[in-house]
Amino acid sequence: MIDRVLILGTGLLGASTGLALRAAGFTGSITGWDKDPKQSRDALRLKAIDSVAPDPLTAAGASQLILLATPVYAILDWMEQLAPVLSQVHLVTDVGSTKALITSAGNRLFNQPGGAAFLPGHPMAGKEVNGAAEADAELFRDAVWIFTTDPWISLQKEGDISPEAGTLEMEWMQWIRAFGCRVLEIDAARHDELVAWVSHLPQFLATALTALLETEVGDAPELTAVGGRALREMTRLGASPYSMWRDVAYTNTEAIAATLHALEQRLAHLRENLRTPELRDEFDLANRFRKS
Amino acid sequence: MIDRVLILGTGLLGASTGLALRAAGFTGSITGWDKDPKQSRDALRLKAIDSVAPDPLTAAGASQLILLATPVYAILDWMEQLAPVLSQVHLVTDVGSTKALITSAGNRLFNQPGGAAFLPGHPMAGKEVNGAAEADAELFRDAVWIFTTDPWISLQKEGDISPEAGTLEMEWMQWIRAFGCRVLEIDAARHDELVAWVSHLPQFLATALTALLETEVGDAPELTAVGGRALREMTRLGASPYSMWRDVAYTNTEAIAATLHALEQRLAHLRENLRTPELRDEFDLANRFRKS
Repeated sequence: MIDRVLILGTGLLGASTGLALRAAGFTGSITGWDKDPKQSRDALRLKAIDSVAPDPLTAAGASQLILLATPVYAILDWMEQLAPVLSQVHLVTDVGSTKALITSAGNRLFNQPGGAAFLPGHPMAGKEVNGAAEADAELFRDAVWIFTTDPWISLQKEGDISPEAGTLEMEWMQWIRAFGCRVLEIDAARHDELVAWVSHLPQFLATALTALLETEVGDAPELTAVGGRALREMTRLGASPYSMWRDVAYTNTEAIAATLHALEQRLAHLRENLRTPELRDEFDLANRFRKS
Repeated sequence: MIDRVLILGTGLLGASTGLALRAAGFTGSITGWDKDPKQSRDALRLKAIDSVAPDPLTAAGASQLILLATPVYAILDWMEQLAPVLSQVHLVTDVGSTKALITSAGNRLFNQPGGAAFLPGHPMAGKEVNGAAEADAELFRDAVWIFTTDPWISLQKEGDISPEAGTLEMEWMQWIRAFGCRVLEIDAARHDELVAWVSHLPQFLATALTALLETEVGDAPELTAVGGRALREMTRLGASPYSMWRDVAYTNTEAIAATLHALEQRLAHLRENLRTPELRDEFDLANRFRKS
């Protein structure tokens, strides 16, 4: 039974996980740590965590489940630091936005006989604003929480994952279902390719659109008021922080570049067909996506 | 005092205007007509109109204010048909999405000594779904309702617009303020250039993105579920109907093409800088737009 959780990184996702655990009836201890003391203080104030760990590595040793809830490169760094100090009684999992590097590091550093287990995870939920102060126990309601296995790890699991780790994994997935999530297990490479389309492309597109509008009409605030709901919605993600998305851009560059390039071509096609029947085809395709 | 209104085109905007008039305390008659009998029946059922006009041109003659609430080319067609049968006791206004052609036609066909007045309007409000059944008395709350004058018409108004028409114009603007709108008067060419950025670009971009996603991941509905709120929001406008946006594309082609081309270049710039500090600059610009 998981009754000692450590959350490393108590920003929006980390603190929301703490709140979701409590809302789902978790009665064990939830310890937290963040390199920004304001985030751990906010998480403590919101009761997303019970206490702030004085030393994260010592706290990890004393926990059963360690959730890494930072940007991707910091997750990779934590994995390097945690692997040598943990053992088969520990399960490490994460909420990182790209999964190929993290799954591969999990494979290399964890999931070995006698060592801790690592379960790469990614809840498809978030906000355009960051920080523990924005945490919400309902953030994950109706979202998909992805776990990325890869064939090599799956094979390895047959024998090398300890029964303790297997039990912790199953129990963690039960908590996630209790948050209101649907669990989806897919290959890490497929995950990164897929989220490039459905998550990274919408974000980088919104950033490019919003930056363009700032350049073109940003000096006329009374005119941006003209835009209405459509403009507000299409630029909401323009508020997203660079600090998180930089790691996404660096760790999924090729897949994101491919989606951006495809969209550039699609926009050029639409632009060249503003007065031809091809425009109807684009609307028909778009209408179909929304109906499915 | 306006007490006989005719709405030609009782779809989303036309029927919402009828409902907004009633909600604001209008006690006169509201007659409606739509080429699609289902739209006028729905508008009647929702009490957005009191009666369906048997003949729209006869009904126009018997009204004081005629609101044209159809796609742009149908508005231009109504203007041609109405001008010869109306006189200085009539005010015609519209809700068309592009204003250069309509304002110029208003100038040519109306606003002449002895003839009816024409006031080109554009409420910056809407939904991605069309039809009277979607009408909402609150649709215009907090929106900007634009009127496009052009210098030549403004000069002409000094002498040639009848006092009756001037009174009707002022009264109509009062009703629009009573809907919860802010009135903004700008030049028609500037309107079309501005809405290309803040309305048409977001729409055509959403259509291109959504059509692309339908092509790339549309055959995997379980995977589109992965996308979450960001994906839903960025593709909501993908449901918008071709029937309305075709006229926008045809009547504001150059301005829209310029914004699409600028976005293509911006996306290419971002794509080429996914791993350089330029990416931070794009996020900074986008963050600034959202804060202004």
